[in-house]
Amino acid sequence: MRFTTEKRTDDVLEREFTLGDIPGILWTPASTPAPLILLGHPGGLRRMYPRLAARAAQCAEEGFAAATIELPGSGDRPRSAAAEEARADLRRALEAGDPVDDEIIDRLVLPLVDTAVPEWQAALDALVALPEIDGPVGYSGGVISIGVRLAVVEPRISAALLFAGSFVPRSMIEQARQVTIPLLVLLQWDDEGNDRQMALELFDALGSQEKTLHANMGGHTGVPRFEGDDGNRFFARHLK
Amino acid sequence: MRFTTEKRTDDVLEREFTLGDIPGILWTPASTPAPLILLGHPGGLRRMYPRLAARAAQCAEEGFAAATIELPGSGDRPRSAAAEEARADLRRALEAGDPVDDEIIDRLVLPLVDTAVPEWQAALDALVALPEIDGPVGYSGGVISIGVRLAVVEPRISAALLFAGSFVPRSMIEQARQVTIPLLVLLQWDDEGNDRQMALELFDALGSQEKTLHANMGGHTGVPRFEGDDGNRFFARHLK
Repeated sequence: MRFTTEKRTDDVLEREFTLGDIPGILWTPASTPAPLILLGHPGGLRRMYPRLAARAAQCAEEGFAAATIELPGSGDRPRSAAAEEARADLRRALEAGDPVDDEIIDRLVLPLVDTAVPEWQAALDALVALPEIDGPVGYSGGVISIGVRLAVVEPRISAALLFAGSFVPRSMIEQARQVTIPLLVLLQWDDEGNDRQMALELFDALGSQEKTLHANMGGHTGVPRFEGDDGNRFFARHLK
Repeated sequence: MRFTTEKRTDDVLEREFTLGDIPGILWTPASTPAPLILLGHPGGLRRMYPRLAARAAQCAEEGFAAATIELPGSGDRPRSAAAEEARADLRRALEAGDPVDDEIIDRLVLPLVDTAVPEWQAALDALVALPEIDGPVGYSGGVISIGVRLAVVEPRISAALLFAGSFVPRSMIEQARQVTIPLLVLLQWDDEGNDRQMALELFDALGSQEKTLHANMGGHTGVPRFEGDDGNRFFARHLK
């Protein structure tokens, strides 16, 4: 892990880094060592930067560090021809108003999960080795299938806020049953970018004894501001 | 409205009252005049008292007054033979594991709503005339069909926390479309006392632009403690 830039705003230290070929960003609060929240996103760090920086600032207010890495096939990372093709097939189905074939969702999401999850684990290895990071780790947002897989395979993650805002492969329902950590699941009720019924099935399948669903109006990007506060309180309950 | 008892605990003044034949309780915080939250419940004030007093104490912490009245056919109020029969039919259907007929739910809930809602409105008339009460009014919990009908017909109610914990007549779905006030809807995911799919349909139908669903595990009476705080923050956003 190599830090490449450094910027300080309102007591938050923001540092870009590279982990091999993967770019990432780490935000640390004034008081360290701090518990860490991994910030998921749909891919495209530059495009997502304003929202990620805002979420990191909210984390810092609660005393949490936050970190994120670019997803495979997004931002400046090499594209995958298969993923681009699956994405085009999904777009075509949505534009035609057709139901989206399970097979398209599998081609789009499963290879992404298989590649991304070990990368997030490698990032976690590097991040928890830093003197600024200590304590339990949370995962927040991004592609929900990545969050579910991480919650299953990564014992260092103690609590997760999952955003049910992307299409979910059928096989993730079975994986969801293996999740046991406390969860807060956000669902935008009229989200154009996922399948509400599937999101509810996934919530139902999640094996955690403590799981809460928060559903709101307002479309994919319309998550209300108060959910940021609710998310912070969720992590404060479980990471402190 | 006639006050019959008076008790002070931790800065909260609790007074029982009667409104005609209907018993009720009013809790006022140290600082008055205060906005009012009407506390719904499933019927049986004595049985529900510990939970209602705890919710009233949480309201008082936020500076809200709270009030409740007995439901028709519950507690010390005269029983309705028709409602008792419908309740027995519901119990039989649940014990036999049969699907519950819409007709039973209609017989159980609709007369209750028709009788209770004007009573809550009469109580509201008397409560807002008190010098201790001033500002917007909220409604919280209880039989969800009463909350939906009140939200439709009572313009003094500015925000409602609805508990999707009772069976809902089909015709309430159409009424739900007329609700426009901000809503927080609580659902216990594995509640034995309602129909999850119907609760989700009701949430979907509610006409409010700002509506949030919080679903948790733990059965009908297992609403997590942190939902009390979330409810207070919801009312603080809308009644202050």
